[in-house]
Amino acid sequence: MRERGLDPTKVASAARDDIDTFVELHIEQGRVLESARTPLAVVSAIVGTAHLEVTVTGQPDHAGTTPMGLRRDALAGAAAMVQAVESIAKSLGKPAVATVGKLNVEPAQINVVPGTVVFTVDLRHPDLGGRRALEERIRSLCGTISEERRLGLVIRTLQEKAPVAMHAEVRTLLTRAAKECGVQATEMVSGAGHDAQILAAKCKVGMLFVPSIGGRSHCPEESTDPAHLRLGTEVLARSLELLAY
Amino acid sequence: MRERGLDPTKVASAARDDIDTFVELHIEQGRVLESARTPLAVVSAIVGTAHLEVTVTGQPDHAGTTPMGLRRDALAGAAAMVQAVESIAKSLGKPAVATVGKLNVEPAQINVVPGTVVFTVDLRHPDLGGRRALEERIRSLCGTISEERRLGLVIRTLQEKAPVAMHAEVRTLLTRAAKECGVQATEMVSGAGHDAQILAAKCKVGMLFVPSIGGRSHCPEESTDPAHLRLGTEVLARSLELLAY
Repeated sequence: MRERGLDPTKVASAARDDIDTFVELHIEQGRVLESARTPLAVVSAIVGTAHLEVTVTGQPDHAGTTPMGLRRDALAGAAAMVQAVESIAKSLGKPAVATVGKLNVEPAQINVVPGTVVFTVDLRHPDLGGRRALEERIRSLCGTISEERRLGLVIRTLQEKAPVAMHAEVRTLLTRAAKECGVQATEMVSGAGHDAQILAAKCKVGMLFVPSIGGRSHCPEESTDPAHLRLGTEVLARSLELLAY
Repeated sequence: MRERGLDPTKVASAARDDIDTFVELHIEQGRVLESARTPLAVVSAIVGTAHLEVTVTGQPDHAGTTPMGLRRDALAGAAAMVQAVESIAKSLGKPAVATVGKLNVEPAQINVVPGTVVFTVDLRHPDLGGRRALEERIRSLCGTISEERRLGLVIRTLQEKAPVAMHAEVRTLLTRAAKECGVQATEMVSGAGHDAQILAAKCKVGMLFVPSIGGRSHCPEESTDPAHLRLGTEVLARSLELLAY
């Protein structure tokens, strides 16, 4: 930045306060629109996210000489917790999601009962109460499982982001713009984070989604039907027209 | 070996056929004797072992944008299988044991639904029929879980060892020797492999176990009460006397 004559220490002075409304067009990055055969969505809210790290401690023992009843198997306990994370998210129902993406076992020997397992939980909900309910139930059930199995349990919060609602006026306007372009847009929650989430602190925000083929995202297969890209830009243009005049 | 004037190519000629009975004294390497407050055991059999490698394939997806119902989560499926391995061994009852010691997740990202999980199963039983029943039930239940969850499943056998019974005459003789040393020995299965397992192909074999403190084995904490070590050597000596005269 300095080479170009800019001063990074003055970045705060670049903040703008002349923006009234921010409209973002994005690919969905999931399979919801494709599954519903819907070409366009107006986003209602961006989910809140919490990332947890769960450490389960048992006792490493010889896999041949330790009867099942004398074990404190960290992986068997962690497996019950992974199941619990999935079933709690399912039982809370859409749009709650919870995912165990990483799981490491120690000492990781074929003939040793695992002594320690560390796994992560990614949990998301567009409503702060829903996000907290999801987390509380997961923490509680992991606690019950660890007590029943005489395992140590430590749950650490790695990250927390509050959910952000899109502005009601902008949602209405985007739905109208879609209708004027001949499309009945559906409303949906965004499970991924977006720029609109940050700008919501500064101005009115709204988002449009077009379908992702096969829901693929962040990989070489990421793609969207050109007809959907065209529709998205048309509705975006009509939205800006409606906002400006 | 060559430096010492020995020829490694002639190792087969060192095989002995003049051994009638082989008696092995060993620490238990588990917690069974300590839990039962028993100072000595006569081994009835050494378990048969099978090592399996299980590969579960689902689809990696964005943890935020993929609703629970559209997922093919390899780790959620593998967790159900880990639970199944434990519950099958428990329901078959002692002395069956089954252990998942290693488990690797891909792509192992906090915000990605796992696409592939590879885990190992170590399963043991002193009776070949029992060992096979254990393996068949595990294979069958893993198959059911993978079908229900639309996951790919490949189970590969890494290693198989048949169970080995200790010789009936030697077992009787060891129990008598213990009695003559003032101890009522219990009978138990060895969950770990031992030299007697190999020599059983050549001669009559028998084994004595003394307790391991806390069941610890293959670690710096491995230890046995000196009184138990002394008892073991006394019973061993009496056994050899009974065998020789």
